[in-house]
Amino acid sequence: MENFTDVQYILNGFLMLFGGILVMWMAAGFAMLEAGLTRTKNTATILTKNVALFAISCIMFYFVGYNLMYGEGSSFIGSGFALSGIAYDDHSVMADFFFQVVFVATAASVISGTVAERMKMWPFLIFVVVLSAFIYPIQGHWTWGGTALGGLIDGFSDFAGSTIVHSVGGWAALAGVIILGARKGKYTKDGKVRPIPGSNMPLATLGTLILWMGWFGFNGGSQLAMGTKDDIDAIGMVMAATNMAAAVGAMTAAILTQLLYKKVDLTMVLNGALAGLVSVTAAPDTGMGYATIVGVVGAALAVFAVPFFDKLKLDDPVGALSVHLVAGIWGTLAVGIFGNGEFIAQLKGVVVIGAFVFVTSFIVWKVLDMVMGLRVGEQEEIEGLDIHELGLEAYPEFKRN
Amino acid sequence: MENFTDVQYILNGFLMLFGGILVMWMAAGFAMLEAGLTRTKNTATILTKNVALFAISCIMFYFVGYNLMYGEGSSFIGSGFALSGIAYDDHSVMADFFFQVVFVATAASVISGTVAERMKMWPFLIFVVVLSAFIYPIQGHWTWGGTALGGLIDGFSDFAGSTIVHSVGGWAALAGVIILGARKGKYTKDGKVRPIPGSNMPLATLGTLILWMGWFGFNGGSQLAMGTKDDIDAIGMVMAATNMAAAVGAMTAAILTQLLYKKVDLTMVLNGALAGLVSVTAAPDTGMGYATIVGVVGAALAVFAVPFFDKLKLDDPVGALSVHLVAGIWGTLAVGIFGNGEFIAQLKGVVVIGAFVFVTSFIVWKVLDMVMGLRVGEQEEIEGLDIHELGLEAYPEFKRN
Amino acid sequence: MENFTDVQYILNGFLMLFGGILVMWMAAGFAMLEAGLTRTKNTATILTKNVALFAISCIMFYFVGYNLMYGEGSSFIGSGFALSGIAYDDHSVMADFFFQVVFVATAASVISGTVAERMKMWPFLIFVVVLSAFIYPIQGHWTWGGTALGGLIDGFSDFAGSTIVHSVGGWAALAGVIILGARKGKYTKDGKVRPIPGSNMPLATLGTLILWMGWFGFNGGSQLAMGTKDDIDAIGMVMAATNMAAAVGAMTAAILTQLLYKKVDLTMVLNGALAGLVSVTAAPDTGMGYATIVGVVGAALAVFAVPFFDKLKLDDPVGALSVHLVAGIWGTLAVGIFGNGEFIAQLKGVVVIGAFVFVTSFIVWKVLDMVMGLRVGEQEEIEGLDIHELGLEAYPEFKRN
Repeated sequence: MENFTDVQYILNGFLMLFGGILVMWMAAGFAMLEAGLTRTKNTATILTKNVALFAISCIMFYFVGYNLMYGEGSSFIGSGFALSGIAYDDHSVMADFFFQVVFVATAASVISGTVAERMKMWPFLIFVVVLSAFIYPIQGHWTWGGTALGGLIDGFSDFAGSTIVHSVGGWAALAGVIILGARKGKYTKDGKVRPIPGSNMPLATLGTLILWMGWFGFNGGSQLAMGTKDDIDAIGMVMAATNMAAAVGAMTAAILTQLLYKKVDLTMVLNGALAGLVSVTAAPDTGMGYATIVGVVGAALAVFAVPFFDKLKLDDPVGALSVHLVAGIWGTLAVGIFGNGEFIAQLKGVVVIGAFVFVTSFIVWKVLDMVMGLRVGEQEEIEGLDIHELGLEAYPEFKRN
Repeated sequence: MENFTDVQYILNGFLMLFGGILVMWMAAGFAMLEAGLTRTKNTATILTKNVALFAISCIMFYFVGYNLMYGEGSSFIGSGFALSGIAYDDHSVMADFFFQVVFVATAASVISGTVAERMKMWPFLIFVVVLSAFIYPIQGHWTWGGTALGGLIDGFSDFAGSTIVHSVGGWAALAGVIILGARKGKYTKDGKVRPIPGSNMPLATLGTLILWMGWFGFNGGSQLAMGTKDDIDAIGMVMAATNMAAAVGAMTAAILTQLLYKKVDLTMVLNGALAGLVSVTAAPDTGMGYATIVGVVGAALAVFAVPFFDKLKLDDPVGALSVHLVAGIWGTLAVGIFGNGEFIAQLKGVVVIGAFVFVTSFIVWKVLDMVMGLRVGEQEEIEGLDIHELGLEAYPEFKRN
Repeated sequence: MENFTDVQYILNGFLMLFGGILVMWMAAGFAMLEAGLTRTKNTATILTKNVALFAISCIMFYFVGYNLMYGEGSSFIGSGFALSGIAYDDHSVMADFFFQVVFVATAASVISGTVAERMKMWPFLIFVVVLSAFIYPIQGHWTWGGTALGGLIDGFSDFAGSTIVHSVGGWAALAGVIILGARKGKYTKDGKVRPIPGSNMPLATLGTLILWMGWFGFNGGSQLAMGTKDDIDAIGMVMAATNMAAAVGAMTAAILTQLLYKKVDLTMVLNGALAGLVSVTAAPDTGMGYATIVGVVGAALAVFAVPFFDKLKLDDPVGALSVHLVAGIWGTLAVGIFGNGEFIAQLKGVVVIGAFVFVTSFIVWKVLDMVMGLRVGEQEEIEGLDIHELGLEAYPEFKRN
């Protein structure tokens, strides 16, 4: 260390590594949240999917995705083996890669919850291969990769990925759930919605608090630099605002469910906190007032989106569409609405990325459905995926009701 | 970055953000600990309370509490909207706020455990509003806010909050439990104490280890600066000593319960670790020998306090009074006993803050009891708070004994 | 702060504290993993053991072990009270101690899993006293302590402890399990192996993901410096490679169990990830290609080692021998095989340390067996250790099958 440029280089890299560890930790958050919100007969499968999807995302993004996202190539897609050629002036290459790679799994985690309890494991994991190698990086090339798709989405702004990460996962999940259909017995013939309660509330709560914690790395690390006073001021604001959005999101859901249903719904409180977090993610550096308003509205949208998706018979066991897709769109548009970005640019980004991800995902799901079938058999679904897809059960000693 | 002052500014701020994330994580620790130490029929309620109390603390402390604590005002109470006017020379304002705001919930978390399994949710949450907006910040104004209450508690020293955070929570909990009374069936008519075992030991253990981890941020971050060699030396000592106090606390409880009851009591081992942590919190920068002694005594006090509170029929399902109030007082006085501070000043601080928090809390609990009732009905208590207060159960699929 | 040397001093110390917190967190990972992979009737005991072993390791290493490891003394063993005499030029003494002390418990945690479900608690904890005070530090004195055992193991290289930490735990566990014998009913008279499924897969998964996260501190912190651009580049590579080894380890196990058993085995996926992590630990700074190959082979070895140990009737409830001993040896030798170190030096290190730890551990276990008996009675084993060794059960309200 010989000069201040060296100090900046170190601090910038450390921020990315620190943030990356927290984002990796979100994998545990999704695993616990989804294990808690599904039924015990499918718990081991959802756990396996979550560990495997994180592993696959990291492998594929290293060997393929990172290059398509950050390699030069065209304005549509990158090329070459980008990592070997990169030497950044102001931060470590591998620290940068580490921070980027853990983001990919977040998008994939959104999907696993939505298609839980009836999708086969291997087709799901193959979808994750395609998502992390191609779909996610290509749209990332247009945004964080910096090409703006040849100017088409010029001016689009998404600080840490309300759209680029969360709604990408949401669109892919939506495409999947349309093809896959609802769980057996979720919607009765006379048009009623049958609630299927999650099996383990402590796990769901733990998962949410892990995600809340991890989000400080997700948003705070996305400042991508800690080498100036302005940087650390910004990171401080980002973390305080992220926390505020989660807090108001949780309380918005608590109060709304008390008013609407006369009882507070814990799963809605958890999803309210997450919706607040997703909403603020597009612009967490804006301020505490912004975080408060965006978080309240995002959580309220999620509370109303859950029955709305049920009306459309889009069966989402964990509410991921409401949290990641709906609040992700809201958070991205809010940047334009509150004047921190241009509304039209934000809308164009949401539409272009949404269309690309939804269409490509739909095609991939459809091909997988034709080739190997997406859905487990009726018997498997009734008896649970664990004893059919895996060699074990999640809670073999506990007697079930 | 142009000079060493900038580097210091960045490192100081980063320490606060890093510490703040770890303290936020303690919310998960309290949630898991309390969910593990209570019965399954009340688990979803205690989880909801813990998420909501963290959210409320953060919201109220931003809009009200921080200003009363750090605003200029009088020596009794601050005023104005402090955050907008502050620009610190040596660290980021929002990093400072982030570190302070997550502390408030710790105090509130102490209470939720003590009043668990029979207090209604909404009155509890309204108490948290008052605690985080007024009670906690006012006593914080006298200490960390720097006014020494016009000289009344001059010389009082509490590094990271044995008194200012932990026993504040403890006094408020004590006031609550006096008004609320014991759980049905805890104390039989013939004067016996009926043990009510916690329902999930892995969760309680996880919660304790989360708190242990988070305490490195709680105590380490309270150095409030990482810009000099002395600072990092101090932080190193603080973390090593914090760890030592927890370690000897756990083993003290293990050995004591083996000797007293012929069996090691896991919940006591967990509470012993926590009591060690609370005890060292008033002066974790003192040294390893100090941490060892203070931790051993603190854990021993907690082990004996648990049956003592039961003798007084103060029913504390998780042992929070023993851990946070008793060890908190001990840790604060120990600073004076071992000559790192003046004993009389420490005693005055404990008494003044204790009296203020106990009296104000008692009044608030009493008003809440008269207006909306603190305690759930008998039927609700027997059947569990979850099915009455919430729209769901914690473990709907698991068959109970 | 007046010059760049001060900045380096601070950053080096902070890296150790940051890494140390993550390694401490691994204690929770081991506790959850082992609680998840054993039966409910022994869960509270395994939790108690894990908390107590961490506490004991920290206490004994401070008062005894650190001095034997880092004190000058002879080339075989250190002496004096090392901590009081040390003042490092480039980093804080207590930060250094904090990082070292949390490593000791990792070795002890490996053992608790292997001997679970039939070893008495107190003899186990006394073994941990000896391990953390003497066995671990003595071999550490030869390696990280820098004496190379008077030249005998000159050139031996083990970046973060594939051998020095993980296989040390493994050898001690192997010695223990030979004396202790298998769990009742694990191996039937007609030579069959009866599977005894773990009771709680979410806990096992959570534990694995905690360990995965903690490993970034374990390996990343072992760079021991963050004061130059080269350091942060190296730490970035270490973390990315550590993550890659875990990812390919998990997928290797997923694919292998699908091929071998026609079903994916979640516990093998978890152990595959851990085996990848243990394997890369000897040289995580080598590169992504190296991490990939070493991780794949390490996980494959673990998958085959599990039935191999069963063939030898070495009953290891959690697979710790396969993960920490087998993959630990593999990872250490791989450094020589792939030319980052001399193969003969690596082999000598593995053999010398293995022989020392196995023999001394065997003697200690044997003495403990003769003096107080290692194994619980038959009745205790059948009914579970929890109700006999402890005053409580892990899940008192849940009905068992």
